[in-house]
Amino acid sequence: MSRKTGGFTMPGEAGFEDLTLELAKRWGADVIRDSDGTELSDDILNAGYGIYSTICIIRDHNEFAKAHPETVQQTFLMSEPVMAESDSAVIELLKGYYLGQFRLNDSPESMAWWQVFDRTANEEIPADRWAYSDGKVTVIGTVPYHQYTVNFLCYRIWEEISMYNHVTNDWGDKEHLIPIDPRYPVCREYMADWMRRWCAEHPHTTVVRFTSLFYNFVWIWGADERHRNEYTDWASYDFTVSVKALEDFREEYGYAITSEDFVNKGQLHTTHMPADRVKRDWMDFINRFVVEVGKELIDIVHEAGKKAYVFYDDSWVGLEPNGKRFPEFGFDGLIKCVFSGFEVRLCSMAEVETHEIRLHPYLFPVGLGGLPTFAEGGDPERDARQYWLHVRRGLLRAPIQRIGLGGYVHLTRGFDSFVDCIEELSDEFRDFGEMHALGKPYTFKPRVAVLHYWGRLRSWTLSGHFHETYMNDLIHINEALSGLPFDVDFLSFDDVKQGKLAEYDVVINAGRALSAWSGGDAWADPELVAVLTKWCAEGGAFIGVDEPSAVPGFGDYFRMAPVLGVDEDTGARVTHGRWAFEPVTAETAADEELADALRRGLVPAGATVKARACRFLTDGTAAVLAAAKVLSSEVPAECTSGEIAAAAGVTDDTPAVPALTVKSFGRGKGIYLGGFSYSPANVRMLQNLILFAAGEKVDQAYTTVNPVTECTFFPEAGRIVVINNTAEPQETAVRTPDGETGVALKPYGTSFIEV
Amino acid sequence: MSRKTGGFTMPGEAGFEDLTLELAKRWGADVIRDSDGTELSDDILNAGYGIYSTICIIRDHNEFAKAHPETVQQTFLMSEPVMAESDSAVIELLKGYYLGQFRLNDSPESMAWWQVFDRTANEEIPADRWAYSDGKVTVIGTVPYHQYTVNFLCYRIWEEISMYNHVTNDWGDKEHLIPIDPRYPVCREYMADWMRRWCAEHPHTTVVRFTSLFYNFVWIWGADERHRNEYTDWASYDFTVSVKALEDFREEYGYAITSEDFVNKGQLHTTHMPADRVKRDWMDFINRFVVEVGKELIDIVHEAGKKAYVFYDDSWVGLEPNGKRFPEFGFDGLIKCVFSGFEVRLCSMAEVETHEIRLHPYLFPVGLGGLPTFAEGGDPERDARQYWLHVRRGLLRAPIQRIGLGGYVHLTRGFDSFVDCIEELSDEFRDFGEMHALGKPYTFKPRVAVLHYWGRLRSWTLSGHFHETYMNDLIHINEALSGLPFDVDFLSFDDVKQGKLAEYDVVINAGRALSAWSGGDAWADPELVAVLTKWCAEGGAFIGVDEPSAVPGFGDYFRMAPVLGVDEDTGARVTHGRWAFEPVTAETAADEELADALRRGLVPAGATVKARACRFLTDGTAAVLAAAKVLSSEVPAECTSGEIAAAAGVTDDTPAVPALTVKSFGRGKGIYLGGFSYSPANVRMLQNLILFAAGEKVDQAYTTVNPVTECTFFPEAGRIVVINNTAEPQETAVRTPDGETGVALKPYGTSFIEV
Repeated sequence: MSRKTGGFTMPGEAGFEDLTLELAKRWGADVIRDSDGTELSDDILNAGYGIYSTICIIRDHNEFAKAHPETVQQTFLMSEPVMAESDSAVIELLKGYYLGQFRLNDSPESMAWWQVFDRTANEEIPADRWAYSDGKVTVIGTVPYHQYTVNFLCYRIWEEISMYNHVTNDWGDKEHLIPIDPRYPVCREYMADWMRRWCAEHPHTTVVRFTSLFYNFVWIWGADERHRNEYTDWASYDFTVSVKALEDFREEYGYAITSEDFVNKGQLHTTHMPADRVKRDWMDFINRFVVEVGKELIDIVHEAGKKAYVFYDDSWVGLEPNGKRFPEFGFDGLIKCVFSGFEVRLCSMAEVETHEIRLHPYLFPVGLGGLPTFAEGGDPERDARQYWLHVRRGLLRAPIQRIGLGGYVHLTRGFDSFVDCIEELSDEFRDFGEMHALGKPYTFKPRVAVLHYWGRLRSWTLSGHFHETYMNDLIHINEALSGLPFDVDFLSFDDVKQGKLAEYDVVINAGRALSAWSGGDAWADPELVAVLTKWCAEGGAFIGVDEPSAVPGFGDYFRMAPVLGVDEDTGARVTHGRWAFEPVTAETAADEELADALRRGLVPAGATVKARACRFLTDGTAAVLAAAKVLSSEVPAECTSGEIAAAAGVTDDTPAVPALTVKSFGRGKGIYLGGFSYSPANVRMLQNLILFAAGEKVDQAYTTVNPVTECTFFPEAGRIVVINNTAEPQETAVRTPDGETGVALKPYGTSFIEV
Repeated sequence: MSRKTGGFTMPGEAGFEDLTLELAKRWGADVIRDSDGTELSDDILNAGYGIYSTICIIRDHNEFAKAHPETVQQTFLMSEPVMAESDSAVIELLKGYYLGQFRLNDSPESMAWWQVFDRTANEEIPADRWAYSDGKVTVIGTVPYHQYTVNFLCYRIWEEISMYNHVTNDWGDKEHLIPIDPRYPVCREYMADWMRRWCAEHPHTTVVRFTSLFYNFVWIWGADERHRNEYTDWASYDFTVSVKALEDFREEYGYAITSEDFVNKGQLHTTHMPADRVKRDWMDFINRFVVEVGKELIDIVHEAGKKAYVFYDDSWVGLEPNGKRFPEFGFDGLIKCVFSGFEVRLCSMAEVETHEIRLHPYLFPVGLGGLPTFAEGGDPERDARQYWLHVRRGLLRAPIQRIGLGGYVHLTRGFDSFVDCIEELSDEFRDFGEMHALGKPYTFKPRVAVLHYWGRLRSWTLSGHFHETYMNDLIHINEALSGLPFDVDFLSFDDVKQGKLAEYDVVINAGRALSAWSGGDAWADPELVAVLTKWCAEGGAFIGVDEPSAVPGFGDYFRMAPVLGVDEDTGARVTHGRWAFEPVTAETAADEELADALRRGLVPAGATVKARACRFLTDGTAAVLAAAKVLSSEVPAECTSGEIAAAAGVTDDTPAVPALTVKSFGRGKGIYLGGFSYSPANVRMLQNLILFAAGEKVDQAYTTVNPVTECTFFPEAGRIVVINNTAEPQETAVRTPDGETGVALKPYGTSFIEV
C-alpha cells in the first residue's frame, strides 16, 4: 500500500471493478477516469473517488453535421503539380489525397478563395485563364514544361484522431466522425446546448476533461499507403480555415488573407520555421476566437458545479497554454501526457490551479513504435523507470499537482513489479510535491533565456514530443535545462529589442539556419544584433549551437560571430584560409579562468559535442575545447581529449572544424557548440558551460561530484534529493557548504539527504 | 634503354652533366630544360638536345620597379572588422595582413576608390564621415556595436610565388622580387625590350617557357603564422587590379567598378561561386589585355626564331587556355603539371600545336604534404605508378605530344627502379601517342555535357588540383569522365538556353547548392528550367549529384525535381511526410529496363554512393537503388545491397534518405546521386549510369568484365589497351563483337590486344 494518498488519477475499467479499486488503493489514487471507448460502472462511480470524464466537443455530432454541412471543418490544400506539355493543362484537385479525409468545397463562396499558380515561374494565373468543373481545373495559356497547381478549399469529413484510431485499429464499418466548426453560429449554439445537456446527464462527473477544444493540429493524409502521412504539424493553424473565418478575418483586419498565405508554394508554414506577419495575424485571430467560444463551454461546466480540465493534445490549436490569453479560458486544470522533463516544465508553467501529467507507459499491450509493453516480451517496469528518469528531473524543478495513468487496468495482471514500481514512484511524486509546497528549490545564480522566433508561446517544446523532434538540438537543450537548477525563460527577438535581456545572464540560441529556433530573418535586423552584442560586451554570455543567429546577406553568416569567434562557410568562403588551432586542455589553456574551469571539470568525462562541417574560427581568438576533421558529416567528438577526432572520408588535408569553443568578449563571453545531444554527461556539461559563461565556479555547493548524478536542494524542506540518471548503480557525493556528503544510488535511484 | 625516343623533356643539372645525358638516353629524351635556380652548362647545351628556358616576365626587375613604383602590382583588401563602442571608430588598415606582401597605396588617385562600410547594417558610410591618416581610417557617427570595415588599395610588394619559395626554403636576406604590371605603358615597353634582349642573350634556347604571364592567382597572406593563408583562389582576378586598370575599365565600359565589387563583404568572389555581371565584365576586360600584351611578347620570341610555350600555373590569370581568345596569343605549346586524368584532358583541349604534361613525382627530396620521395623512406617508383594510374586514363582518351619531369637528376641515384619505371612509362606514353596519331579511340554513343556556371571556360578543372578541390563531388566526376569512352563537353546555362542540348544525350549537374558547380541563381530562370525539362521529356537524361539545380524561392528546391523525383528539404518541409521505399534490386525492380540493367551490372560490386541528409522522394515514382538512414551526416551506402545503411546517431524513427535513384521522365530519365567519390568501381558505376541513362546496354562491346579494369579501343591502330586501375593484379576480359578476350594484368599494369 502506498504510504500516502492523493494526486493520482487512474483509469477505471468496466468489468474489472475490483481490480480498479484495488490498484487505486495500492497507488494512492483519489480520482478515476474513463478512457476512450470505456464507460465507468456504478461500482466505480459510487466508490467515493473523484470522476474525470472525457469529452471531445467537435466530434460525435454527425446528425448535426449532416443537417448543417457548411459547418463541417475545412482546410486549404494544394493540388499535386501538373506539368504542362502544351498550351493547356488539366489539374485533378484531390489527386493524391486520402479521400476518406477530404471532400472538395466547390461552392461559389469557397471558389472565390482559390488560386492557380505557375510554380516554375512563381506567378499567379489570373482567373480568366482557368476554369473549374467536376473536381478538375483547366488552365489555358500554359507554358510547356512549367508546373501548375491549384490552391483550393475542401471539407475535412473525418475527424483526424478518430480517423487514425479507426484505421489503425481496423474499426471497419463504424461511422466516420465528422468534425464541426463553431465558427458558424449555428454550430456554436449547438455546442453550448450539447454541453449543458451533457453536464445534466453526468452527475457523477467531478471534472470534465476537454480533448481539447476545436481545431486539430495539421494532419494531412495521402491516398497512397507509402505516403499516408503527407504532412503533420503539431502546432500550425491550417485546420482553422473556413469560408466564414476567411471572411471574418478580412472584415476585422482590413485585408484579405489568401490561400497562398497558407499553402506557401506547397510547403505550408511549419512551426519549425519563422512565421510572417500574416500568419501571426491569423493565429491571433483564431486564438481570440477559441478563447471566446471555449470560455462559453467552460462557464457551462462551472455552472454545473464541475471543474474543467483540458488535455493538452489533439484539437489544441488556438489554446496554447503559454499564449497570452490562456488564463481567460478559466480552465481549472491542464493535463499533459509526458515522456520527457521538458513536458513537465511546459505543463507546470501554465496558469491553472491543477497541473497533471499522464505518465508512460500507458496500460496498452504495445507502446510507441509497436514494441510490447503489457504483453509477452514487455518489461513495463523498466519502461516506467526509464521515462521516470526524464520526468523526475522536471518534477524536481517545478511543481506538478497530479500524476496519472491511462489505458486498461486488466493488462497489469502478471506484471507485479510494474504495480510495485508505480506505488514507489507515486509516493516519490507526492514527496516532491510536499517539498515544493514548502518552498522553491535552490537555483544557481545565472538566469537563462532561450532565444527563438516564438519566444514564450513555444516555451520548452518545439512542436510535439521528444521522439518527434529529436533531430533538433534545441529539444535536447530544453530537455537538459528542464532538470537543471536554473531559472529559465523563453524569449522572442522582440523581447530582446524591448530590453528584456537585463533580466538574464546567459542567452542560448540553437538551431538550423533559417529555422524558427535559430531565428532566420530576425537576424537581418541590425538593431537586434547590436542590442545582443552590447549586452554581451557588458557581461552577458551568448551560447550558440549549430547555426545560431545565421542569416544570409551579410559578411558574417552567424550575426553573433564577433561574440562567438566562430562562423560558418556556406560556400562563399571555401577558398579562405582557416586559423590553425589545437584543442586546449587545462594544461595548455592560455586563459587562467578557463584553465581553472577545465581543472574543476568544465567538460565532464563522457561528454561529447557534435562537430558540424564548414565551421571556422573568425579571428583565432576563441579557445577550441573540442574539434574534429569532418566533411559534410557530423561526428561525436570527444571533448577536451586534446586530439582531433576524424570522420570517415577525410584526408590529411581536411582541416579540423571547431566543435566547442569559448571566447571572452568585452566583459562577457561567447560559447559555441556544433551540436548538443541529451545524455547525462552532456547535461552536466551544459550546466557547467552556463555557470562558466556567467563567471561562476562549476564545482560549487549543491552540485554532485559524479556528473551522471544530480541533486536538488529544497532549503525550506531541509532536504537534498539526489538522483541517478542512469540504469547502473552510481556512487556520488553532494558538495555542500559544510563539505561533501557521499551517496550510493541504485539504478534509476532517488535518495534523500536531510540537512 | 628506351625502345623509342622523343616527346620527353628532362631537367638538366649543372655539375651532373654525365648523369643528365645518361638518363636522357635511358628515357628517350629529346629536350632538356633548366629548373628554377639552375643554369645549364655548355656540355648539355651542346649535346644536340632541344633546350627549354624558363622565364617569369613580371619578376626579377626590382631596379625598374623601384624607379617606377606606380607600376608595382596592386590589389584591393578589406580591413579587419572593427566594432564601434562609441560614436567613432579607428580602423588600422593593414592589421592582420602580412606586411612582407602588402604596402598601402594611399595616393589620392588610389583613395578615390576606397569605401567604408557598416557591415552590421550593410550600409556604405559616406565619404564625409571618414578620414584617412597614417595607415588608419577614422569613422565618425558610428552606431555602437556595429562593425566597420574599409576597402582599400595596396601594392603587392613581393611576387607571391617567389615569396612562398623564399619563406618555405628560408632564403634569408635574398632580395624580395617585386611584381610589375604591364597595365602601365612604361612597364609594357620595358617588358618588350627585356624580352628582345633576353632572346638575343640565349641563342641555345629553342623554346621559351613562360611561367606564365602577368597576374598571379589570388593568394593573400596573414600576419599570424596560424593564419598565414588568408585566401587562395587559383582562378580569380583580384590581383589584376590597379588604379590605371580601374580607370581604363570605367572609360571602356561606361560604368565604374567599385572596390566592393571585389571585396564583396570580405568574402571576395571565389571561383567556386557564380560570378555576377560586373565580375564577368572585368574578367573580359583583363583577358583582352593579357592576350594583347602577351601576344607582343610571343611575337618577339617568334621573331627570334624560338618557340613560345606557356606553363599553365602561377601567373596564369587572364590567359585561360579554354578562354575564347587563347588562340590569339600564338603560343606553340602548353605545359601542365598533372596529378590527375582531368588535367591531361584540360591540357589536351587547348588549341596549341604541342601539349606537354609534367609528371609527378618531381625529382625533389620530398613530395606533396612533406612525405619523402627521393630520400630515405621514399618510394618514387610507387609514387610514379600511382600518379600514372590516373594520368594514363586521360592519355588514352586524348592526345598529348610530350611528357617531362622536373627537379634535380642527381636525386635519382640509388632509386634504380624509378629510373626503370620512367623508361617503361615513357615508352608506353609514346605507344599511346602513335595510336592517337592513327585515329581517335572508340567512344560509346552517349554524348555527355557537364553543366555549370562557367561552362567551357572551366572545362575539366574546378580551380586547382584534385587534392585542393577533392571536397567537391564534381572534381571526382570530372576525374572519372577523363578516362571514360565518352565525348564530354562543359556547358554553361547560356549554352543550354541557346539550344546546345541538341548535341548531347546526357547532362550532369553536380555540386553544393548556390555554388558555381550547381549553378545558383541561374536556376531561378524558368526558361532554363523549361528548356532542360523539355529536353529530358523528349529523351535526354539528367544526372544530378548532391544539390543539382538548387535555388531557394520556389516550391521545388531542386528545380529539376520533377525529372529527378528527388528534392531536398532545407527546413521548410521537416514536418512533411516522406514516401516509404525499399531499395530495389534486379529481382524487385518493377521496371524491366532497370531490372535488365541491374542484372547486367548497372551498379558494380564495390561501388558506393554518398547518402546526404534531408533528401526525399517527391512523388514516389523514382526507383531507389541505394539509401541510408542519416541525420546531417554523409555515410557511404553500399549500393543495391537491398538494405538501408545507417549512420551514427540515428534512431528507428529516422527515415532513410534516397542516395541513388533512377526515374523515367517522358522519353528521358532523371538520375540522382547523393554524392560521387572517385574510385575504380565508382568510375564504372558512372559509365554504366550514363549508358543506362541514354538507353544503352551497360555490358556492350569494348567494356571489360572486371569493373576495376578498363579498356580503350583504337580502331585505326587495331589495338585495344587494357589497364588495371588498382595496385593489385587483376584478371579481366574485354567484350568484343567477336566474344570475350581474357587478360591478366599486373598491379598498375597495361596490356595491348591486337585486333
